Parts: sequence; C-alpha cells; structure tokens
Amino acid sequence: MTAPSSKRDANRRGQGRRRGNRPERSDRSAGAIAQPAWKPVTYHVAPTEILVPDAIERIHQAGLAILQEIGIKVLGQDARDAYAAAGFDVDDTSELVRFDSTGLMETLATIPAEFSLRARNPQKNLRIGGKHAAFCSVGGPAYCMDLEQGRRRGTYKEMCDFIRLVQSLDILHQEGGGGFEALDLPADTRHLDLFLAQATLMDKNWVPWNMGTEQTIDALTMGAMMMAESVETLAEKDPLFVGVVNTNSPLQLDIPMAEGLMTLAAHGQVAIITPFTLAGAMAPITLAGTLAQQHAEAMAGLALTQIIRPGVPAMYGAFSSNVDMRTGSPAFGTPEYTQAAQISGQLARRLGVPLRSSNTTAANAPDAQAAYESMMSLWGAMGGQANIIKHAAGWVGGGLTASYEKLIIDAEMLQMMAAQCEPPEVSDATLALDAIRDVGPAGHYFGTEHTLARYEDAFYTPLVSNWDNYETWLEGGSETAERKANRVWKQLLGEYEKPPIDAGIEEALNDFVARRKRGEAV
Amino acid sequence: MTAPSSKRDANRRGQGRRRGNRPERSDRSAGAIAQPAWKPVTYHVAPTEILVPDAIERIHQAGLAILQEIGIKVLGQDARDAYAAAGFDVDDTSELVRFDSTGLMETLATIPAEFSLRARNPQKNLRIGGKHAAFCSVGGPAYCMDLEQGRRRGTYKEMCDFIRLVQSLDILHQEGGGGFEALDLPADTRHLDLFLAQATLMDKNWVPWNMGTEQTIDALTMGAMMMAESVETLAEKDPLFVGVVNTNSPLQLDIPMAEGLMTLAAHGQVAIITPFTLAGAMAPITLAGTLAQQHAEAMAGLALTQIIRPGVPAMYGAFSSNVDMRTGSPAFGTPEYTQAAQISGQLARRLGVPLRSSNTTAANAPDAQAAYESMMSLWGAMGGQANIIKHAAGWVGGGLTASYEKLIIDAEMLQMMAAQCEPPEVSDATLALDAIRDVGPAGHYFGTEHTLARYEDAFYTPLVSNWDNYETWLEGGSETAERKANRVWKQLLGEYEKPPIDAGIEEALNDFVARRKRGEAV
Repeated sequence: MTAPSSKRDANRRGQGRRRGNRPERSDRSAGAIAQPAWKPVTYHVAPTEILVPDAIERIHQAGLAILQEIGIKVLGQDARDAYAAAGFDVDDTSELVRFDSTGLMETLATIPAEFSLRARNPQKNLRIGGKHAAFCSVGGPAYCMDLEQGRRRGTYKEMCDFIRLVQSLDILHQEGGGGFEALDLPADTRHLDLFLAQATLMDKNWVPWNMGTEQTIDALTMGAMMMAESVETLAEKDPLFVGVVNTNSPLQLDIPMAEGLMTLAAHGQVAIITPFTLAGAMAPITLAGTLAQQHAEAMAGLALTQIIRPGVPAMYGAFSSNVDMRTGSPAFGTPEYTQAAQISGQLARRLGVPLRSSNTTAANAPDAQAAYESMMSLWGAMGGQANIIKHAAGWVGGGLTASYEKLIIDAEMLQMMAAQCEPPEVSDATLALDAIRDVGPAGHYFGTEHTLARYEDAFYTPLVSNWDNYETWLEGGSETAERKANRVWKQLLGEYEKPPIDAGIEEALNDFVARRKRGEAV
Repeated sequence: MTAPSSKRDANRRGQGRRRGNRPERSDRSAGAIAQPAWKPVTYHVAPTEILVPDAIERIHQAGLAILQEIGIKVLGQDARDAYAAAGFDVDDTSELVRFDSTGLMETLATIPAEFSLRARNPQKNLRIGGKHAAFCSVGGPAYCMDLEQGRRRGTYKEMCDFIRLVQSLDILHQEGGGGFEALDLPADTRHLDLFLAQATLMDKNWVPWNMGTEQTIDALTMGAMMMAESVETLAEKDPLFVGVVNTNSPLQLDIPMAEGLMTLAAHGQVAIITPFTLAGAMAPITLAGTLAQQHAEAMAGLALTQIIRPGVPAMYGAFSSNVDMRTGSPAFGTPEYTQAAQISGQLARRLGVPLRSSNTTAANAPDAQAAYESMMSLWGAMGGQANIIKHAAGWVGGGLTASYEKLIIDAEMLQMMAAQCEPPEVSDATLALDAIRDVGPAGHYFGTEHTLARYEDAFYTPLVSNWDNYETWLEGGSETAERKANRVWKQLLGEYEKPPIDAGIEEALNDFVARRKRGEAV
C-alpha cells in the first residue's frame, strides 16, 4: 500500500526516516497542518498475553458451554431458520438456539484470518487481520460538542464538517459512521444523507449504519453506486463495508441486528459481531465471566455469518467494560477495560478471527481524564493487536457525544501510537559511531553533518502538543491541549479539499437519495 | 510483602478481589479518599521487545566500541585512579578512560539482578529488579505549581506538604527527592532540611540528593540515624538508598557525580547511572545512536560501582528522549521516548542489571497533553519492565516543575497501570456459568447473588476520574480532572497523619541538622 498521490497529500510532512521517502522541505505549504503521511499500522511486537493459554482455553470452553447448554435467544424467524438449516438446535417457542461445540467450531473455521477492505480511493484500501491495524473515527453518538457551543444535538451541516475532518486526518484509515447523528433530519431517511456525505466528501473507507434489512440495502446500493458496481456483484470482490452488529447482551440477538448481519454477509460484506457486555449489568461482575459471555455471543453471531455465506469475512468485536456499581454508569478506559481488550485479542486469535476494539472514555470533556482513559483503551486495544480500532478518534462521554476537540487530540494520540509501532532502524548509519567520535566527550550534536542530514524529519512532529518552555508557553496565552485542538480543527476544516469524484457517480448518488426520500421505487 | 498494618491503612479500600483480603465495608472512614492498599507492582506479561535480538546486540556492541575506541572523559582524579587500578586504560592528560570490552563485561557481571531496598517502615521495603517495579515520585524540579497560585519558587513548607502527599498516596512506593527545591532555604544546607523531612514525615523509602561527597555522606548519616544504625555498617545490610548519577552527555562524568557514585557504592548503596541523552543535542539524532551512547555511558558508570565495591547493587538509568529541532526544547513522552524506554529494557536485560525509567511530559499544565505524554512514558517504561519508575507522579514542564494536581492525576494513572498488571482470576467462580444460566437471555445481573457477593470491590475505584453522565457532571459544575485533582490533594493533605517515629531518633536527626548548619563537627 502506498501513500495517496493527491497534490494535497504531497504537501504533508512524512515520517521520512521510517518510510524512506522523505519529502523535500520545499514541498510543504507554509503554515498548513503537518501530519505524517497516510500509512497503515503494522504490529511488529508480540501481542500482550496477560492470561496464560490454559486460562484462555477455559474462557473459550466456557463460551462453548454457554452456547451448548443455555443458548442464545434469537428474535428473528429468518435468523432462527438459518441456524436450524445449518443443523443447530432451534426452539421456536423459547426462541433459543443452542450450539453443539463441534458443529460450531466447524462453522467458524471458514472465517478468513485476513481480508482486504476497499475504499473509493484504491490507495486507501485497507488490509484487516493478522498484524494489520486500522484506526476508525467515532460513530454512533447522539450529540456533538465543541469548546464554544458545548454539547448539543448536531445538525447535518455539522456532521458533514465532522466527516470532512475525518477525511483530512491521514491517521484515520476509516470513517466510523458520521461521528454523530444529524438530528435536524427526519429519522427515517437520515441514513441516506449520511451515506451521501460519506460517499462524496471522503475517499476513505466508511462504516455505514446497518439496522435492519432496508437500511443495510440502502448502504450496499449507495456503496455499489460509489464504486460504479452493482449490489448483485459486490460479493465477488473484496468487501466495501464493515458493519457493527451488537448483540443485546446477555445472550440475545434482536431482529434489526440479525437482519443487518444477514444482509451484510449475503452480499460479501463484513459483520463485526460486538457484544455490549458491561460487567455487573449485562454481564457477570467478574471479568472472566463477562469475557466468557462476550465470547459466546460473538461466536453465535460469527456462526450466522458463515451459515449465510461460508467464507465471508467477519470480525470479533470486543467491547467489554464495567459499570460503576455505585451509580450504574458505564466506565471506560479502566484497568478492567484494558485487560478485557488484551484478553479479547487472545480469544479472537484462539478462533483465528480478526479483532475489533475501541478507544473509549467516560470523561465528558477532552481533559486529562479523557486522555488517560483513551490511552488505557488504545494500549489495551493495540496490546491485544486489534485489527480495527473503532471510535479511535472523537469519542467522549461514554460514547454519547462526539467532540471536535477530542477528534484532534485522539488523532495526536493515534499518530504517536502508530509511530511507536515502527521499530527504529539499527544500522551503521543510525548507530552513528563516526558522529559520536567526531563530537567526542562534552561536545554537542546540533551542527554535525550527521544531524544536519536528518534534522527535518528525524522526530515525530506533534499535531497538538506544545513543547515550549514555560515562559514561551505563558507568553503564548497558556494554551491548553483542548484550546489548541480547537484551533487545529478549524484550520483543518479551512484547508479541507473535497477529494475528486466522478460527476456521474455523484449525480447518481444524489438522485438515488432524492428518489428514496420521495418513496419512489429505486 | 504485606500491606502496612497501621490503623490508617486499614481504613482504605483494598482491591480485595485481587488480594484475597477484601476489607469490610465498615472499616472505611466515611468520605476519606479511597485508595487501593499498598502493594508492589509485579509484571506478569513478557516485556515489549520492539527490536529483534540482533539489533539489540548491535547497539550493545556499539556501546562497547564507543568505550573501547573513544572512551569517556572522567573529570575526577579519584575516579580515574579507581578505573586505572582496575586495569582500564586511563590518560590523565586527556582525562579519558577507555575500556577493553572483555574486562568491562567481567566488571559488570558482579551487579546483582535483583536487590531489596529498605524503608523506615519495614513493611514498605521494596524488591527491585526482575519482574518487580516500584513507583517513585518526582524529584529535582526547581519550581512548584498548583491551580490557584500557578508556577512559583517553592518554599520548605510547601515542599513538606508535597512530601506528606507522597506519603499519603499508597500507589507511590518511593519518594523521589522532595518534589521540588525549597528555594527559601540557603543553598548549601537545603539538602539537610530535605533529608529531615523525608526521614520524619514519611516511613517510605526515599531518594536523597547525592551531588558530591559531603552531601552524600550527609544523606548516609541521616539515613543510618533514621534506622538506628551507623554509616560504617550500612553496607552490611540491604541498601537504604538509590541515588541518581547523571553523566554529562556526551561521554563525560563530572566530579560531583563521580563522588556521589563512589560514596554511594562504597557504603553499599545503589547508584542509578542515568545518561541524559537527548537525541539531536547531547546524543546523535538517530535513536539507535542515542541508545548506543546511553548504553556506553551507563556501562562506564556501572563499572565504577563494581570497581569500588564488587557486587554492590546498581541500576541502569534510561532517560533518552529527543529535542524539538525547531527550538531545541526537549520533548518527552514522544513515540521516540516510548521506544527508547522499551529498548532500554532490552539493553538492561542484556547486561542483567535492574532498570530505571521515568514518567515524563513537556506539558506545562496538567491537561490532556500531560496525560497522554505521561501515558506514553508509563507504557514505555512498563513495556520495558522498568524496576523503578522515577518522576512517576508530579512532573510537568519537562521536569522543571512539580505540580500538586499532576501528582494526583499521575497517582490515578499509576493505580490504573498497577491494576491492569494483575491478571484477572479465571476459575469456576469467576467464569460464573451458574450466574449466566440463572440470569438467562435478556436478563440483567444487578441483583444476582453472584453480583451481590462481589460488588463492593469488584472494580477499580478512581481517585480523580468522573464517570457521571453528562447531566450529572454538568450539575456538579463541569469539573475537569485538574480541578478534581486540586480538591483531592487538599483533602489528602487534611487527612495526612504523620507516621510514628521514635522520639529519640527524631531528636537526633533534628540535632544533627542543627549542628551541621552551625558548622560543627558531627
């Protein structure tokens, strides 16, 4: 995968030392926001294995036992019929589906360990699974928030700005679903406006909404139009979409989610089966029990993808956290969350299925708490070697709010996480014995040839961080990270350039949305 | 190692699920700050190995080559004489000491891989090395800072308050040197007042200043008095002190540092040899070169400890970071810093020497930047499996300032890091299949027996984090982490109780300080 070749991208500061294609200094637009060039993330270290293999096996076996002995309640007749046709034990009265462990493991065995995900710009295609990771922006919140206006119901115009920012931030490999809902639009057609914005304002891969068959088909239709393809042949190529399928924990799969799952899978698209297992509320208060339940629910959903279309890519979604037992509020980015993310990596690898994790926080403002809870989430996710990190940028307030400033602060954290994943070069040139000899004891390296040849791109350049000394920082107005982030997103939005799109495709997408809103057959 | 048995400690909330000694609810003082009980940190996962073994060996060999071919400039005659007596190549004109690699490695081989460090309260003794880690509060800054008064020159009274807070925070295993300097006291005797406060206001292990022979002997004298021992016999027991010995990078050891090193080692105390290698300024701009130079300087200092007293514990201090090449300002908590910490772990393990790392940030306020740079530092340090994390709490502004609020925010981060190190229990009881069966699909776990038996201590309890929903948070005044931390340190200070100390010992310490200030022979 190479860096996108657009003119705008060439203006950015690349991490030349790591990529071997250091851009010339003159290429940079004066004053433009400097970012490392687009680059997928690759894990080079071993995953964090906090549990010994025997303990992982016990959780896995507990997950199997839950599905064999208790089963999962599946509300949709279509989904139950599919399970029954595959030979699993379905009781239409109780709506319970039970799974013999051997049959279940055989069913799961067809899930690919890796797959590719296409974007409108093929240079932004993604590889998912194995040692590959992609950062995906926040999706799902009901509210938006910024420093000036505080938390509020977001509009379509604001949502489009959020999407433009996601497009502009090269560290974000994938867009996660609009950031927040455009609550000024009618609820029943809002998804069409979202898909239109995703398809036309960006050229990255994007995550659609997939609640129920109709919404999912709309996504597939517009995705196919965007690629100048047809829905019928989508499954013949690499998938365009990952869609999130939450189980209704404990142990229930509802109709809209099952419909979304089956529609995605039938068309060769990727369902991320994500149990929403909050320990102490929808799952046992013990982490082992919560993970056993998560594992059971994930396996049940994953099995349905393979029943619908054997071999279709699917993902293990990990979202276990805990509630505050005093208040019932969900907690995020806690030590338990971090461990759950790491252990979920072990469980997903047990199945050989790509993993999704998240960047979460309960903080209601982009302050120190938001940063340290997000960092706990990110290190957990990346220690678990998650292949997609959802909500990687912009999430605050337990996922109820998308913050423009947090989007930028998270982008900084993601840039740092990506940079620290790349091992430094160890060679004669970088070991620098000649430079050390030339400088000698008590000298300094500022003006040496070794330094001058490398100083432009030697180090990570921050997006938000202020490294000034105290006096300079004070003179500059004692700007906090939140206020700096506010300036950065506004500048980025000003610098946004809409990626090129075929005029016929854009017209067709607009036309489709207009006709669907009028209730016409499409 | 067990939890301290003082009445006050028993009032705190322990992490019962992990320690198996869940305190009764009635033991808690209503409204007191809840903390996990005192507990050393143990690594249970493999260290992060970002470089392959061959690359580590190349850096190690480069470090040996630097010492063999270039050598290190040693300003003190005593230190040079010691190196010469041990057979190394000393040139008194150039002041350079060069090391044959075989002799050097033989000299380093006597450094213990682990050691114990004593505290006034033996229940707070520490194990250093191997899989053991200790968190040590900030030491060294010139300024102090809090939310109300901003940054300022700190007073002795303020320094004592800072030390009281370090004593009160159970997650801090070690005190790092007063937090900041008491600039209202005379410079030549300020260290005596510091040692007095450390010895009497706390019962934890503390880090003295050790610049030059006289200051170091003062520390040893007062440490021995604190333990009712004599300086002459200190070396017969486990060490009382670790002291930081910085090289003057590149490749120079100055007189005060060498004196401190030799005095510590001669008395069986632990020198932490810490090159201050900022890539691009005092070290090569490439991380590999910086680490090769760090490794060389560390080995040279470590060798001197073993020449002075073979077998004395000593530590490998890692402090490599980089400067901002635009301004020359040091940067901390960057991706390069994180990698340097991880790789330093690999290099220290190559030598079999315990490792010291740090929690650093360039941020001038305890905002999101401070939190994410600290988190990058902490994950780097703990990925490298550092055995002492210096400046673990309270450091801001590149180490020029100690912040009361950052002290608390860091304590929260450290509590979380410690908790996530402890693998969760996986057993029939925690896998909770009976509870999952009882609750069944679409139920909830709030009122179940399994939950009720565990809810008090099931999850990490935060020190700072606010997990309220947005509305509740807003009603509570939209408190940020920084403002909450301000409340916490004030409450903690109000709850501080001076640990018991033998009246005769306290009197002797006061008397010693008074006589030393009067210039009397002591």
